[in-house]
Amino acid sequence: MIIIVKQGAQPTQVQDLIESIHVQGLKTTVVVGTEKTIIGVIGDTRRLDDNQLLGNPIVQVVKHISEPFKRANRQFHPDDTVIDCGGAKIGGGHFAMVAGPCSVESREQITEVARAVKAAGATMLRGGAFKPRTSPYDFQGLKADGLELLLEAKRETGLPIVTEIMNINHLPLFEEVDVIQVGARSMQNFEMLKELGRTDKPILIKRGLANTIKELLMAAEYVMSGGNDNVILCERGIRTFETATRNTLDLSAVSVLHEMTHLPVIVDPSHATGVARYVKPMAAAAAACGADGLIIEVHNNPARALCDGAQSLTPEQFRDTAELVAAVRATVAGRL
Amino acid sequence: MIIIVKQGAQPTQVQDLIESIHVQGLKTTVVVGTEKTIIGVIGDTRRLDDNQLLGNPIVQVVKHISEPFKRANRQFHPDDTVIDCGGAKIGGGHFAMVAGPCSVESREQITEVARAVKAAGATMLRGGAFKPRTSPYDFQGLKADGLELLLEAKRETGLPIVTEIMNINHLPLFEEVDVIQVGARSMQNFEMLKELGRTDKPILIKRGLANTIKELLMAAEYVMSGGNDNVILCERGIRTFETATRNTLDLSAVSVLHEMTHLPVIVDPSHATGVARYVKPMAAAAAACGADGLIIEVHNNPARALCDGAQSLTPEQFRDTAELVAAVRATVAGRL
Amino acid sequence: MIIIVKQGAQPTQVQDLIESIHVQGLKTTVVVGTEKTIIGVIGDTRRLDDNQLLGNPIVQVVKHISEPFKRANRQFHPDDTVIDCGGAKIGGGHFAMVAGPCSVESREQITEVARAVKAAGATMLRGGAFKPRTSPYDFQGLKADGLELLLEAKRETGLPIVTEIMNINHLPLFEEVDVIQVGARSMQNFEMLKELGRTDKPILIKRGLANTIKELLMAAEYVMSGGNDNVILCERGIRTFETATRNTLDLSAVSVLHEMTHLPVIVDPSHATGVARYVKPMAAAAAACGADGLIIEVHNNPARALCDGAQSLTPEQFRDTAELVAAVRATVAGRL
Amino acid sequence: MIIIVKQGAQPTQVQDLIESIHVQGLKTTVVVGTEKTIIGVIGDTRRLDDNQLLGNPIVQVVKHISEPFKRANRQFHPDDTVIDCGGAKIGGGHFAMVAGPCSVESREQITEVARAVKAAGATMLRGGAFKPRTSPYDFQGLKADGLELLLEAKRETGLPIVTEIMNINHLPLFEEVDVIQVGARSMQNFEMLKELGRTDKPILIKRGLANTIKELLMAAEYVMSGGNDNVILCERGIRTFETATRNTLDLSAVSVLHEMTHLPVIVDPSHATGVARYVKPMAAAAAACGADGLIIEVHNNPARALCDGAQSLTPEQFRDTAELVAAVRATVAGRL
Repeated sequence: MIIIVKQGAQPTQVQDLIESIHVQGLKTTVVVGTEKTIIGVIGDTRRLDDNQLLGNPIVQVVKHISEPFKRANRQFHPDDTVIDCGGAKIGGGHFAMVAGPCSVESREQITEVARAVKAAGATMLRGGAFKPRTSPYDFQGLKADGLELLLEAKRETGLPIVTEIMNINHLPLFEEVDVIQVGARSMQNFEMLKELGRTDKPILIKRGLANTIKELLMAAEYVMSGGNDNVILCERGIRTFETATRNTLDLSAVSVLHEMTHLPVIVDPSHATGVARYVKPMAAAAAACGADGLIIEVHNNPARALCDGAQSLTPEQFRDTAELVAAVRATVAGRL
Repeated sequence: MIIIVKQGAQPTQVQDLIESIHVQGLKTTVVVGTEKTIIGVIGDTRRLDDNQLLGNPIVQVVKHISEPFKRANRQFHPDDTVIDCGGAKIGGGHFAMVAGPCSVESREQITEVARAVKAAGATMLRGGAFKPRTSPYDFQGLKADGLELLLEAKRETGLPIVTEIMNINHLPLFEEVDVIQVGARSMQNFEMLKELGRTDKPILIKRGLANTIKELLMAAEYVMSGGNDNVILCERGIRTFETATRNTLDLSAVSVLHEMTHLPVIVDPSHATGVARYVKPMAAAAAACGADGLIIEVHNNPARALCDGAQSLTPEQFRDTAELVAAVRATVAGRL
Repeated sequence: MIIIVKQGAQPTQVQDLIESIHVQGLKTTVVVGTEKTIIGVIGDTRRLDDNQLLGNPIVQVVKHISEPFKRANRQFHPDDTVIDCGGAKIGGGHFAMVAGPCSVESREQITEVARAVKAAGATMLRGGAFKPRTSPYDFQGLKADGLELLLEAKRETGLPIVTEIMNINHLPLFEEVDVIQVGARSMQNFEMLKELGRTDKPILIKRGLANTIKELLMAAEYVMSGGNDNVILCERGIRTFETATRNTLDLSAVSVLHEMTHLPVIVDPSHATGVARYVKPMAAAAAACGADGLIIEVHNNPARALCDGAQSLTPEQFRDTAELVAAVRATVAGRL
Repeated sequence: MIIIVKQGAQPTQVQDLIESIHVQGLKTTVVVGTEKTIIGVIGDTRRLDDNQLLGNPIVQVVKHISEPFKRANRQFHPDDTVIDCGGAKIGGGHFAMVAGPCSVESREQITEVARAVKAAGATMLRGGAFKPRTSPYDFQGLKADGLELLLEAKRETGLPIVTEIMNINHLPLFEEVDVIQVGARSMQNFEMLKELGRTDKPILIKRGLANTIKELLMAAEYVMSGGNDNVILCERGIRTFETATRNTLDLSAVSVLHEMTHLPVIVDPSHATGVARYVKPMAAAAAACGADGLIIEVHNNPARALCDGAQSLTPEQFRDTAELVAAVRATVAGRL
């Protein structure tokens, strides 16, 4: 950690600051410049609170050198983590192709979509039972009934299922769910992350609309510090000034994350773009830069979907996309 | 609502679309242009799902004329709402000056700060018992013990208290709390908002880092649609590319919100700037543009604060700020 | 165009507004709703000034249906434009691989890099002679001497050259330059765009850091409305809150642009990420989603580069990247 | 300057790096940690190129302690700069109230507005002769004729004039102009800034839509490094995801700039909000936080304005705003 001391600080003030660091068992080295003074702090600085240091009137800048995430850090775990999601593996060369409707609407709908995406190459089925909606007047999902229908579709097709949790009190309902999704709006619901850290389920964490890559890793760290290392990260677009797409897909996050962490990283081109006809090229791009999987919205009748119809592929479009993704993956394999 | 039909749509497709709207009990008016066709939809269009319409391949644009929020809408409730927060009023000319530490640290700390801010002009006491922290390794608050200490400070000073809830299961602990705060990261924790809508407590909702003003109003609508109209809105800075301040304070949101809603709007210059010495000018600016209150971090010893020391005022600085704010309010009263 | 009239507008005010539109030769249709009134305007509405309309106190919203760009619009020019850049073609299936150093530093440097990138598969040579730098104290380029060195490298290798213009008065120096680049900071230098519209040179326009896709198309329209249709667009990252990369590469812009315009679209992964080791995966991703070319920084000794060393590839890394890009292009050809 | 060396760097690589710094006449201090090594660099590091350092494969982070701007830096010039603009002073307690139409439209219009704003308290007249417009099909200003009309209005009212330059070749036309404005889109037109640095005219630089506060100061530094210290800075809103206002006014920039620089800082609430009815509260807020002036759009007939009618005040609204601003300034004087 580096601490930059403001110009004009008294030597006794600097000495007090240094001693307050020493009493925490850390070592320091001081560089006195013509204008300012720098203190280098060495040791486990994670518990040294930046804000407390910044509250000291002589401190101008605090900069960490070590990353604040430990269990998610590739530095301490160089090999890719492989996660088993009810039989479908992800990470370390295993690719997950998750597909399904935005929300579960009926037995017929979810079963028909499940069969279609399985036939088209999906390795897992997604579907929302509890739906986070901006408006309280919008369809909120079939809830427990929706979960039950998803499980039926799983039993019928054998596809492991991925579905979102919005309230930690619903956790008992998720016992047979294969992957529990934490949505973008819940990425910093720290209380929920802690509880999920006490389970052993794979947890799929979507990046929040305004969250940095480091904050996404800290969300993973919340789950992992509870003992659950089965975390999958998902880039799904961030909020920017551009309005031509629903969000701005940040594909470079895939490369950055692969460097910083050993956890698998998947991409959601459906929510990122919000437009069905951009899903295929963005899916191909995600495969080309090394994503460990994709999560794509597919509906048997997008024009009648109860939510997100504009971004849903038909099963035929999904098959076409999955084939292109497979071809791109084969092309880049071992070359990134 | 207006629907713009893509160029090249077949008349039969347009007719099908129009009929699908009519069956929902809505009326339409159609304008056929040289390039495109416009369908005007008249009636209560709130339940017509935009995404479903956009899933129709001939639909290019869907634009609502009515706002999706009804209970929070000033159009249907022209007078300012005044909320009683344990004796301190806010809205309709009543100004709330909420002050206190980022987190409750000890009986001595919270009591000393409470006395100091009361003497300096605060009308409510803030203090975090449950703390949302980006890192699981950071101080997470004193939790239930912190709430107890806050209530002691309330009993001693008579100041109503404002404190954040992070988990709806903690609600029973908040029985004597005067205002329950929903933090920026929880602004779209819809399950929690719904539950808070079933209480009759004043709810202070902070704008999320990447949330639009309309989304903030929809969060209020979640609480209000449950029957609780005691909602206070708080602008606390949004996330932008600028790094000189912790966030970018969007003061124009105060003017926009006052136009769109009857709910009181307060400003948090401490979290918005993250820098103690910018708090006073931003507090004065907020008062000048008509905010209904301020929420300011004050600590008896910022250099020792367990969190957010860099943005905390001393009690003396708070008194100075409160006096300037009062003078500015007197200057602009009745002139905005 | 759609105009939404505010609630409470008097019928005579609405009538005045409608007449002011009719006198401009346009037709209208009016939809009177329960709350608001909508006016649909049909005809060539490009010259109807939105701001003037919005200045009318009864007007709430103005929404265009037709796009304001005409010459760049794919609607009126369905086929891809192919541009000949000194022999190297781009667009309509022709891929441009532009490579070279951030800035021309010496005869040895530019000649060595030119030979190396040509051998590795580049179709054009880039190199900055005039450099836009945030600080006046940073290296500003070799200017006219740099241009001369670039031309020497062109003569020696046969590679057409791409280089940036910062001042329209320098135009005479660019006579032998094959493609004139308008940098991100100059994207809305409208005076320069107009002048470039009077030449017949291919113009490469980089998207500004905070500019929307539509604004990029309007910049192209400035050049094209002057008579020069040889415009190439370049996505090079936008400014967001994320700091792990220099900018955020918006690859979905490639898909959006291909839909909206017939002009070729290339991607600059070097400036977008600012990190050499992310260039290869982002180049592969750009090829996978159908970009018409790439522009990549290559330096023979990145550690000694006078600018942007952190994002420059070595010639060997570039060869490796170019080979992967070629493989990905072959995979996606005809399938997007 | 601090350089953080990556984990795993060889001692000989570190030694090479240190020597490459020493040969530039700078001193170093090295701190070797368990994981990483820190190099402190002492001396005038402005000419040490960050990118060159970052191009070295063992360098992880480069962090400057000194700011890269020198002439604009308050550290070396503690007193506020006062600039004389044709008789109207700004800075150091002198407040500039600049008002006028978006664009000069006719002799009657500019003269009428000039008289009205002077009577209402304006100290300078603004008006656009050369207009930067997103679309080539929009009104581009009266150009040289517009400048002439502005000068007539100046002669008639005695108000100094502020007007924008879009092309440095037009400079001779600006001889009698009192303040030359560099618009937001030209903030990084470095060639123009350099030329303006060779004049002795006051230069008003507007912050770019996506530019940081530091970049704004570097733009000022371009002008000042040429010898012209008469620079006025203007906050006019930045581009964010929020769409309720045209841009997001960043008022905290006023406080940050006052701390970092001695140059005067004014605020443009008209372009920041884009909505006439938000101009007054934002003008009051700007005055409350210590801005040195305001620039406000006023039109004698906003509904007929050729541009930006939606954000223009009538002369009566401007008078009302100016009176409130004066009252707020009197209230905060000497207290910020």
